[in-house]
Amino acid sequence: MQYPLTPDVKPEFCTTGTFMRLPSNRENAKLAIVGLPFDTAASFRVGARFAPQAIRQASMTLFPYHPIHKVYPFDACNAIDIGDVSVIPHNIHRSYEVMEKAVMELMEKGIIPIGLGGDHSVTLANLRAAAKIHGPVALIHFDSHTDTWDTYYEEKYWHGSPFIRAYEENLLIPDKVFQVGIRGTLNHPGDIDSSSDLGYHVITTPELKERGFENVVREMQEKIGDTPCFLSFDIDFVDPSCAPGTGTLEVGGLNSFETLQIIRSLTDFNFIGFDLVEVLPPYDPTQITSLLAATIIHDFASLVALKIK
Amino acid sequence: MQYPLTPDVKPEFCTTGTFMRLPSNRENAKLAIVGLPFDTAASFRVGARFAPQAIRQASMTLFPYHPIHKVYPFDACNAIDIGDVSVIPHNIHRSYEVMEKAVMELMEKGIIPIGLGGDHSVTLANLRAAAKIHGPVALIHFDSHTDTWDTYYEEKYWHGSPFIRAYEENLLIPDKVFQVGIRGTLNHPGDIDSSSDLGYHVITTPELKERGFENVVREMQEKIGDTPCFLSFDIDFVDPSCAPGTGTLEVGGLNSFETLQIIRSLTDFNFIGFDLVEVLPPYDPTQITSLLAATIIHDFASLVALKIK
Amino acid sequence: MQYPLTPDVKPEFCTTGTFMRLPSNRENAKLAIVGLPFDTAASFRVGARFAPQAIRQASMTLFPYHPIHKVYPFDACNAIDIGDVSVIPHNIHRSYEVMEKAVMELMEKGIIPIGLGGDHSVTLANLRAAAKIHGPVALIHFDSHTDTWDTYYEEKYWHGSPFIRAYEENLLIPDKVFQVGIRGTLNHPGDIDSSSDLGYHVITTPELKERGFENVVREMQEKIGDTPCFLSFDIDFVDPSCAPGTGTLEVGGLNSFETLQIIRSLTDFNFIGFDLVEVLPPYDPTQITSLLAATIIHDFASLVALKIK
Amino acid sequence: MQYPLTPDVKPEFCTTGTFMRLPSNRENAKLAIVGLPFDTAASFRVGARFAPQAIRQASMTLFPYHPIHKVYPFDACNAIDIGDVSVIPHNIHRSYEVMEKAVMELMEKGIIPIGLGGDHSVTLANLRAAAKIHGPVALIHFDSHTDTWDTYYEEKYWHGSPFIRAYEENLLIPDKVFQVGIRGTLNHPGDIDSSSDLGYHVITTPELKERGFENVVREMQEKIGDTPCFLSFDIDFVDPSCAPGTGTLEVGGLNSFETLQIIRSLTDFNFIGFDLVEVLPPYDPTQITSLLAATIIHDFASLVALKIK
Amino acid sequence: MQYPLTPDVKPEFCTTGTFMRLPSNRENAKLAIVGLPFDTAASFRVGARFAPQAIRQASMTLFPYHPIHKVYPFDACNAIDIGDVSVIPHNIHRSYEVMEKAVMELMEKGIIPIGLGGDHSVTLANLRAAAKIHGPVALIHFDSHTDTWDTYYEEKYWHGSPFIRAYEENLLIPDKVFQVGIRGTLNHPGDIDSSSDLGYHVITTPELKERGFENVVREMQEKIGDTPCFLSFDIDFVDPSCAPGTGTLEVGGLNSFETLQIIRSLTDFNFIGFDLVEVLPPYDPTQITSLLAATIIHDFASLVALKIK
Amino acid sequence: MQYPLTPDVKPEFCTTGTFMRLPSNRENAKLAIVGLPFDTAASFRVGARFAPQAIRQASMTLFPYHPIHKVYPFDACNAIDIGDVSVIPHNIHRSYEVMEKAVMELMEKGIIPIGLGGDHSVTLANLRAAAKIHGPVALIHFDSHTDTWDTYYEEKYWHGSPFIRAYEENLLIPDKVFQVGIRGTLNHPGDIDSSSDLGYHVITTPELKERGFENVVREMQEKIGDTPCFLSFDIDFVDPSCAPGTGTLEVGGLNSFETLQIIRSLTDFNFIGFDLVEVLPPYDPTQITSLLAATIIHDFASLVALKIK
Repeated sequence: MQYPLTPDVKPEFCTTGTFMRLPSNRENAKLAIVGLPFDTAASFRVGARFAPQAIRQASMTLFPYHPIHKVYPFDACNAIDIGDVSVIPHNIHRSYEVMEKAVMELMEKGIIPIGLGGDHSVTLANLRAAAKIHGPVALIHFDSHTDTWDTYYEEKYWHGSPFIRAYEENLLIPDKVFQVGIRGTLNHPGDIDSSSDLGYHVITTPELKERGFENVVREMQEKIGDTPCFLSFDIDFVDPSCAPGTGTLEVGGLNSFETLQIIRSLTDFNFIGFDLVEVLPPYDPTQITSLLAATIIHDFASLVALKIK
Repeated sequence: MQYPLTPDVKPEFCTTGTFMRLPSNRENAKLAIVGLPFDTAASFRVGARFAPQAIRQASMTLFPYHPIHKVYPFDACNAIDIGDVSVIPHNIHRSYEVMEKAVMELMEKGIIPIGLGGDHSVTLANLRAAAKIHGPVALIHFDSHTDTWDTYYEEKYWHGSPFIRAYEENLLIPDKVFQVGIRGTLNHPGDIDSSSDLGYHVITTPELKERGFENVVREMQEKIGDTPCFLSFDIDFVDPSCAPGTGTLEVGGLNSFETLQIIRSLTDFNFIGFDLVEVLPPYDPTQITSLLAATIIHDFASLVALKIK
Repeated sequence: MQYPLTPDVKPEFCTTGTFMRLPSNRENAKLAIVGLPFDTAASFRVGARFAPQAIRQASMTLFPYHPIHKVYPFDACNAIDIGDVSVIPHNIHRSYEVMEKAVMELMEKGIIPIGLGGDHSVTLANLRAAAKIHGPVALIHFDSHTDTWDTYYEEKYWHGSPFIRAYEENLLIPDKVFQVGIRGTLNHPGDIDSSSDLGYHVITTPELKERGFENVVREMQEKIGDTPCFLSFDIDFVDPSCAPGTGTLEVGGLNSFETLQIIRSLTDFNFIGFDLVEVLPPYDPTQITSLLAATIIHDFASLVALKIK
Repeated sequence: MQYPLTPDVKPEFCTTGTFMRLPSNRENAKLAIVGLPFDTAASFRVGARFAPQAIRQASMTLFPYHPIHKVYPFDACNAIDIGDVSVIPHNIHRSYEVMEKAVMELMEKGIIPIGLGGDHSVTLANLRAAAKIHGPVALIHFDSHTDTWDTYYEEKYWHGSPFIRAYEENLLIPDKVFQVGIRGTLNHPGDIDSSSDLGYHVITTPELKERGFENVVREMQEKIGDTPCFLSFDIDFVDPSCAPGTGTLEVGGLNSFETLQIIRSLTDFNFIGFDLVEVLPPYDPTQITSLLAATIIHDFASLVALKIK
Repeated sequence: MQYPLTPDVKPEFCTTGTFMRLPSNRENAKLAIVGLPFDTAASFRVGARFAPQAIRQASMTLFPYHPIHKVYPFDACNAIDIGDVSVIPHNIHRSYEVMEKAVMELMEKGIIPIGLGGDHSVTLANLRAAAKIHGPVALIHFDSHTDTWDTYYEEKYWHGSPFIRAYEENLLIPDKVFQVGIRGTLNHPGDIDSSSDLGYHVITTPELKERGFENVVREMQEKIGDTPCFLSFDIDFVDPSCAPGTGTLEVGGLNSFETLQIIRSLTDFNFIGFDLVEVLPPYDPTQITSLLAATIIHDFASLVALKIK
Repeated sequence: MQYPLTPDVKPEFCTTGTFMRLPSNRENAKLAIVGLPFDTAASFRVGARFAPQAIRQASMTLFPYHPIHKVYPFDACNAIDIGDVSVIPHNIHRSYEVMEKAVMELMEKGIIPIGLGGDHSVTLANLRAAAKIHGPVALIHFDSHTDTWDTYYEEKYWHGSPFIRAYEENLLIPDKVFQVGIRGTLNHPGDIDSSSDLGYHVITTPELKERGFENVVREMQEKIGDTPCFLSFDIDFVDPSCAPGTGTLEVGGLNSFETLQIIRSLTDFNFIGFDLVEVLPPYDPTQITSLLAATIIHDFASLVALKIK
C-alpha cells in the first residue's frame, strides 16, 4: 500500500490517528513525525500538549503531492509517524530525557525528525539530540520571540529560554543561528540584544518585509551553507489572524501566504531536523492554526524530499 | 501489554487514534469498536461523520475499571478498535453494503460490535448484519424520536426511517422492540402511532419518569428474555444541556445521571450488538456530548463483560 | 396550503424568516408571533435584539403537532408571524409606543400575541396594551428575578422595573400576580419584600420544588380563576445549563424537563397574551437556549389552542 | 417602497428572512437571489445547507449603495430573493432537477440568478440551466481547487467534479474557462493537468499575485469578450483567516481586500449568472465568512447594475 | 515599585481585579479571597491558572445579600480579596511555599481564606497552612475523584495526590475526612479502596442521592462536630452540563440546584478554610462554570458569616 | 464605603482590574487609561461595555518596552489607569456628562487620556472635554465609517453621529480632520459627501493603500502641524480577519501589520487625547481583537512618551 493513504483509499474523515494516516513503521524511512506534548514550561496560556493530535487531525485534509516542489514528500521519504513521546507533564528534566532519547534514536537511524510540540522548551531536547549526532548545528528559528531570556522566577528551563540554554550547552554554531520574525513589546531592550550578544542573527518582522524574503534567505544560505541545520518553527511567527491558537500571540506578523512563500524558498539547506511548536488547540475554535501547522509540516517534508530526489 | 493503555503507561493526552487506545487486533476478541461515519441521510444538521474520531478522542480520559459493575470491560472482552468503515458519503446503498459487511464479519467471529455512527440510518446496516447471523432480533432503542417515518421527499432510506425499514425487512421481532425516551413535537399524531401499529412498544420520556426506570426495565426483561437483543442509542435521547452536540435536539430529556442509571440496570439482556449515533462534533464546543457518548460505550462494554465474567 | 409548513413541504433548513415558517397574515387569526427586539434597558449583558430571529431560526426544527395536549396549535389558531416591531434602540419611550401599538392592534382584533423580546423592559408595553383592552390583568411571571426594583441610577424604565411600573400604572391586579422561580443573591432583603409589599405572590425556586408543581399551579388557579391573564417568561427562570444564552444568569434553576412540565399544567387559565424575554444569542453558541425558547412558545400556542378546540 | 429596506426604514437587526430584506417578487426584476442548500456531495466537512440563511442574516449590515461602482445595485436591478429551492439532501439527481428548473425559470424571464450554495456540486445545475438558455458559456471560477476530479469512490456527481461533468455535458466553452486561485496539496500532479487537458486556463494563487490582478483580468477579457459568462465563487478561494467557515480550507490564499479588488475589476464581462458556494456556518463562529460572502454578492449585483445603468 | 508590573514581579496571568470588587485590605477582616493560580500539576487538560480572574469576573453579577441564609456575608466578615499568589508555573515545591505562606499569614490573623485554584494540587498548601495553625483538621471534600492516587509517573506531587500526601504529612484527622460525589471509571478498584484504607469516608454520587443529602450531612456533623474543618470543592463534583469548564470531567454528577442545596445545609461546621479548584476558563465558552464557582464562594462566605452573626 | 461595591455604586460591568496592572494613581502622571463602557447608542451588535475589561485582560501579555520607538511608555509617562467611568447604560446624556467630566479632570491636570470605549458615541464626550481645554482641535480618525450620519430614527446622539455633532458643537477644526480607512457599502453617496461637505478629509482604504502610508501621513502633518490633535480609533478600521470582535464589520480593511505601521509613523503630532472604541468581546472568541486593541494602546502611549523623552 502507498502512504499516506489518499482519499481514494479511505475518505479523509476516517482517521487512523497518525499524521496523514502514515504508518508507524516502514522500511527505509528517512523522515518521521514525532509528538512531543510537553507544555508545562509555558509562562502564559497552556495546552500545547493537545497539539500533536490536533495537527494530525487537521492533516487529514492534506493530499500527498506538493505542487510547487513537485514531489510526493511522504512517499519519497518513506515517512512514518511514531506517535507521541510519553512525557511527564510536571517534570521538564525527565521529559527532556525521554524526548531526547526518542529523537536521537531516529537520527541515529538516519531518519530526520519533525517534532510536534509542545511548548518551545521541547526544542532543547531536539537540539541536544542533534548535537550529539552532528556536533553543534546551524539553526533557522521562526518566531516572534527570541526565547533567549535567562530565567523565569529563577527557573532556568522554560519555554522562554531554550536558545540561551542551547548556547550554554554548545549545541549551536552562533554565527549560523538566525532568529526570524521577532516582534512585539519587550521587558527591556536587552531582550533582543541578548540574542545578538550570543552572536545570533536577529531579523525582525518589519526588517524581513523591508529587506525582502529573497535577500534574507540568501544571507542565511551564505552563512549556513551545508552545515547541518535545524529548523524550529514557533507558530506565533505568523499573525494571530492566521494562527489564533497559540500561547503568547503578537499582532503584526506575516500572513499564511507570506509564511509559505518564505518556507518554500528554503530549498538549499542541509536540514537534519525540524520542530513546530506552540499550537494550542483550546484556543483554535476554527482549527485554522492546526491546519496551517499541518501544511507547514507538509512543506518541511518536501524540503527533505527535494534533497533525496 | 494490558489494554486499554492506562495513564500509568502513557499520559492520557498521548493519542493513538483508537478508542481508549485499544489495539486494532488481538487474540480471542469478544468486543469491537467500529466507526460508521455515514451521515448524509440526515434531514437537518449534518456532521456525524466526525463523531467516531471525536468519541475516541474523548475516551482518552476514561479509565479501564467500571466501579459499579466491578469489571475491567475492555480487558475482560479482549476488546479491539478496528477503525472506521470506508463509507461513501453520497451513496447510502453502497455505504450500507460496506457497513453491513464489516459488522457481519465481526459477528461471524463471535465479536460483539459497538458501532459509532454516523447518523441513525447506519442502524439498518447493523440490524441487517444481526438478522443474518441471529435471525430477527429484539431491540432496545433509546431516542427522542421513533424513526419510523416512512419517506423523506419520497426517499425511503434516511435517518428517520431505519426502524420501519427494519420491520419491512423482517429484521426485528416487533413485540420485543422498545423505543424509549420519545418526546417532542410531531408532524402528526400518527408519527407515534405508526410505531405502535408495527407492534413496537413506545415509552415516552414523561412515562419513563412517571413509571420509574426499574419498572420499565422489568417490562423489557419480561418481553425480551434471552432473545438476542440489539441496543441502539441515539444521543438525542439525553437532554440538550447534557448533549448539545447532536442533529435534531429535543429539550426536556433525561440528564446524564439518569441516563447512566437506566443503562446500568440493563444487566439481564443477551446483547449481540450496539450502536451509538447522532453525535455531531461541530456543535459540541465543550466536548461534553462526546464524553457522554464515550462513557456510555464504556457502560455497554461492561454489560457485555458481566456476561462473560 | 396548511401552516406552519411541515418538512414534508419544504426541508426544515429552508428558512422563510418567520416562526415555524408561518405566514405573516391569514384569515381568522387568533394568535400572532411578534418580535420586540428592544434591549438597551439591560443592566449587564446585552444582545436580546437578536433573539427574535434566533428563536425563529431555532423553530425550524419543531413540528406542528403537540403530543401531550394533542393539538395542532398553529393551525387551530390560524397563527401568524407579523415580524419585528421597529423599535428604536436608544429610546425606551418611543420604543414603548410602537410596541404597545403593535400589540394592541393585535388584541383589538382578538388576536393573542406572543411577544419575542428583547429584554424584560418590553413587558411593560405588553401590559399597557393588555390593560387598555382588558383592564388590569392577572400575571404569571416566570423569572429568577422579581423585576420590581425601582430605579437604576435614577432611571425608572429599565429591565429590572417593569413590574413595579406596571403596578404604579395600575395594569395588574396585585393579588393575581404570581412571580415564580425567584432565586439568587440580592442587593437587600427588600428586593423580594418589595414584591410582597405590592401584594404580589413570590414563589422561589426552592419553594416551587418543595411544594410541588401541582400545588403551586392549583393555588394560582384558585386566585386567578378566569381573569384575563398575561404570561411573561424570562428565560433565566431556567437553569444556566439549559439556558446559557441570557443576560443575568442565576445558577440553581429548574431544568428543561421540569420547566415544560409546569408550563404544560397551565391549562386552566384565560391567557390573553404572552411574552418570552432575555434570550441573548451571542451567548448561546450551541443554540440550546433559542431552541428551548421556541419549544416553550409552541407550548404557549398549545395552551391557547386547547381553549379554542 | 424602495428596496432593499434601509436601516432608515427598519433597524437592521429586524429580519425579514431575505437577502438585505428584498421582496420575493416585484415588477421588472433583473436579478434574483436564490438559495441552493444542497450539501451532501461534500467529501469532508458538511453543513453548507445552512449557508443561504447565514448569508442572508449577515447581509443585514450591508447598505444599498456601492461606493466604488457608484450604483444602487438592488434597486437598479429590481432585485428579488425567491427563497430556497426545496432540495432533497440525499439525492443529488432529484436536487439537480429542482435547482436547474428554478434557475432556468429565472433566466427565461431575463432575470440573472445569484445562487447561494450549498456545496460546489450545485454549480452543475446552474450551468445546465445556463447552457439551455445561452448555449455553452464562458466561466470565471474562483476557487482553491479545480473541481475537475473525476469520481469519488466511483461516484461521478460530487463537489469535486462539477467542472469535468460540465465539460462532458458540453455546457462550457473550454477556452473561455478560467480557474483562478488554485493552490494546495494534490493527489497527483494530474489534478491540475486534467483541467489544462480539458482546455481550461488554470491560474494559481502565487501566479495571480506574481502576474498582477490587472493582467490576469485583461487576459480573461481578451479570451471571453462578450460571450455569456457564468461566475462561480467558492469561498475557499479566500485565505482561512478571512473565511474560516468552509469545508476544505487551503491556507495561503488572498485576503479579503485583494479579493474585493479583483472582483471589482470584472466590469467588462457579460455575466448571465453567479453562484457563491461552500460557506459552512457551523465553522464560522464570528460570522466573518458569511459577511464576506454577503459583501461579494453585493459586488456581483453591482457588476450587473453597471451594465444596466 | 516600577509600573506597569512586569512578569518579573508578578506572572502575567495574575490579575488585579477583585472578587465582587472587594478591597484588598480593611480593618477587622475575617474572610479573604486569595488566588492560587498554580496548574501545572494537572494530568489532562490545563488552564486553571486563569480561573481566579474568570471567577472574579463572573462574580460581578452577584449581589451582596444571601436570601436563604439572610446575611450580607462579605460585609459581615469585612471580607477582602488579596489577589493572586505569585506562583511559579514550573515548580510545584516553590509554589507550595509561597501559597502556604500567603494562606498561613491570613490564618494567623484570624482570617478565613477562600482559595481560588488552580488545579487540585494547591489544596496541599492550604492543608499544610491549616495544620500549622490548627493541628490536623477535618475535611469535607467535594469531588468526582478521591485524589488519593500515589504517584504519576513517579512524581509524588500532582493534582491526583493531595489527599494521600496530606495523610502522610499528618495534616488530616482521617476519620473526619469525607469525600463526597466520587464517581467515574477507575484505574483499579484500589483507587477508591485506597481512600477507605486511609480511614477516609467515601460517598459516591449514587449513594449521595440514594441516602439523601440530609442524612449524609448529619453523618458528617456527628463525625466532625466542632473540629476545625477545611472544605475543598473540586468543580468537577458537578455534572458537566452545569460545569463544562474543568479538566477531567465525569458525566453523571449532581446539577447546580442540588449542589447549592447540599452546600447550604453545611451550617453547623467550624470551617477554618475553603478552596474551589479546577475551573478551566478556556473550556467554558458560556462562562457558566465560573458563575457557578462564584456563586458557591458566595455561599461559603455565608456559612462563615452565619457563625459570626 | 460599603463592600463589596454594589451595582448601585458602580455598574457591575465596570471592572477594577487595570491596564497592564498600572496603579490607579501616582505622582506626576502624564497619561491615563480610562474606561468608557457606554454602548447603548449602537445600531447593530451591542456589547462594547465589556471592552475595557477585555482589553485590560488582554494587556496582561504586553511588556513595558516598545522596541520600535525605544521607549518605556508607561514609565516615561507615569501612566495610571483610573478605572471605568460609571456610565448609565440607558441614558446617553447623563453618560456624556460623567464621561466628559472624568476626561476633563484628567486634561486639566495635564494628563493625556486614552479612553477605552464603549461604542463610538463616547468620542463626543472626549471631544467636548478636549475643546473645553484646548479649543477646537484637530482629529485623526481611523474607521471604516465616517460616523457623520445625522439621525437614527430621529435620535441625534448615537454611534453613527459623533463627528457631525462635534462639528455642530464647534469642537473640531474641519480642515484639520482626517477620516482614514473609510470603506463599505453606503445608504447614499451622501454618506461620504456629508463628511467632505463639513470640510473633513476622507481617505478610503483603497486610497490609503494606493497613495502609500507615508504620503498620507505627510499630508496630515502638513495640515495639522502642532495643533492639539485627538486620535480616535474605531477597531473596525482593521479587517475582520484581525478584528472580528466588533459591531459593524466591513471586510476589506488593512491587516494588523499595516495598521501598526501607520500608527507607528504618527510621531510628529501634538496628541492631547486618544480613544479606542467598538471592541465587542462577546464576538471575539479568540481574543485577538482585544489583544490588537491593547497593542495599539501601547503604541499610543509610546507616541506620547516620545514627546516627553
